[in-house]
Amino acid sequence: MSKNQDIYTAGLIIIGNEILSGRTLDANTQHIAVTLNEAGVTLAEVRIIPDTEGTIIETVRHFSASFDYVFTTGGIGPTHDDITAPSIAKAFGVDWNENEQAKAILLAHYGPEELTSARLRMAKIPAGASLIPNPVSAAPGFQIENVYVMAGVPKIMQGMLDHIAPTLKGGAPMLCGTVTLDVPESQIAEDLGRLQDDFPAVDIGSYPHFKNGELGVSVVLRARDEENLAAAQKALLAVLDARDVAYNIDKPVK
Amino acid sequence: MSKNQDIYTAGLIIIGNEILSGRTLDANTQHIAVTLNEAGVTLAEVRIIPDTEGTIIETVRHFSASFDYVFTTGGIGPTHDDITAPSIAKAFGVDWNENEQAKAILLAHYGPEELTSARLRMAKIPAGASLIPNPVSAAPGFQIENVYVMAGVPKIMQGMLDHIAPTLKGGAPMLCGTVTLDVPESQIAEDLGRLQDDFPAVDIGSYPHFKNGELGVSVVLRARDEENLAAAQKALLAVLDARDVAYNIDKPVK
Repeated sequence: MSKNQDIYTAGLIIIGNEILSGRTLDANTQHIAVTLNEAGVTLAEVRIIPDTEGTIIETVRHFSASFDYVFTTGGIGPTHDDITAPSIAKAFGVDWNENEQAKAILLAHYGPEELTSARLRMAKIPAGASLIPNPVSAAPGFQIENVYVMAGVPKIMQGMLDHIAPTLKGGAPMLCGTVTLDVPESQIAEDLGRLQDDFPAVDIGSYPHFKNGELGVSVVLRARDEENLAAAQKALLAVLDARDVAYNIDKPVK
Repeated sequence: MSKNQDIYTAGLIIIGNEILSGRTLDANTQHIAVTLNEAGVTLAEVRIIPDTEGTIIETVRHFSASFDYVFTTGGIGPTHDDITAPSIAKAFGVDWNENEQAKAILLAHYGPEELTSARLRMAKIPAGASLIPNPVSAAPGFQIENVYVMAGVPKIMQGMLDHIAPTLKGGAPMLCGTVTLDVPESQIAEDLGRLQDDFPAVDIGSYPHFKNGELGVSVVLRARDEENLAAAQKALLAVLDARDVAYNIDKPVK
């Protein structure tokens, strides 16, 4: 947990061999990062781990003790390789049993004839967990202590996160402004270093890119205090004007 | 290190506040995963961490001791927030000094007048490291022990990885076949479980997706042995035929 409770932190655990094998591009991290930021929660670390019981248990325990919130995606479906729920039950030393409420949800969705034993496996939830609704395909996620267990399919994960986000307690959201330049970052590196010294409470990031054969750079200013952020942006633009470097304000400070 | 040296493992460390803030989608993981797989190296874990010295040092040390190869992306540019190189020097307890070879590369690229002190910072490399060429913008990456330090800009990272990949010692590459179905995975979950029992040396993964309002599933079969893989695919198709489930072979077993 963060000691300073103006800052709330989260860790994200992406459980999935399909990401590690390169089969699937992980797009969940970006969506979760943006949503958490809006809720005033800082995503502090992401781990992409295989569907391996020992690794899941160890990572969940470590993250649960390290961050205010932990999110996981993947591995809660009906197949043999979906081992997230029983692994998390083990991480917290609780049973993994059929949950009556989850069973009722699946029964309403599938009907009694289609509720096969494979599908019933999705009603097995760690004891003491509360359910997270799944607006797409019924089978719920769950929350146990500070760990939120979500599906890996982006559409389903997003539906679950929409339900969770309003319940999170966060600090002031991080505000940001982005200014993009068509010069290599090395050309303004010293100026940015001085600007960072002048505005210690503003996080000044310099992110190079390569487009149409040319290097460019986006300068991202991030802070929780709007006035401080606006002052840093003003100082940055003054430096760029003085250096005769053209810029584009992609995202103005709010 | 893997004890069984038929299997070679790698860990990937993505160093970048811009991924954790949601500003940037990480596409490097997928490219690196695919390249390593072709080299017979299994990507075992990915961590996305902030540009924070202590976290970089701790993660690099842990990964270097845990995996055959470690790759990092990000944080080796000329600006104040690029702290990967000095942090990795600290992780290995070596100095972080101007490297003559790196300086010569930058000098040839920028010319003596444009080689500013900010740019010269990119010539500072942990002592004892060897350089990794950068075919895009000259400033090199480096290798120290089993750790390969690459740029974060995808085009540059890919150029560096193209140089590294042929030098990696790997095992037999993981072969794979993919069969996609337009039914929810819960409909074939029990069959897949039995198939996994029948083919323990084939990794059978079930990856649901949601397209045009319908759930479907890709079944991915992975193994190092081609014959075993082909037999598992044949058994899978027989089950699908028996169940009258239509399928598409996206990627046939080689």
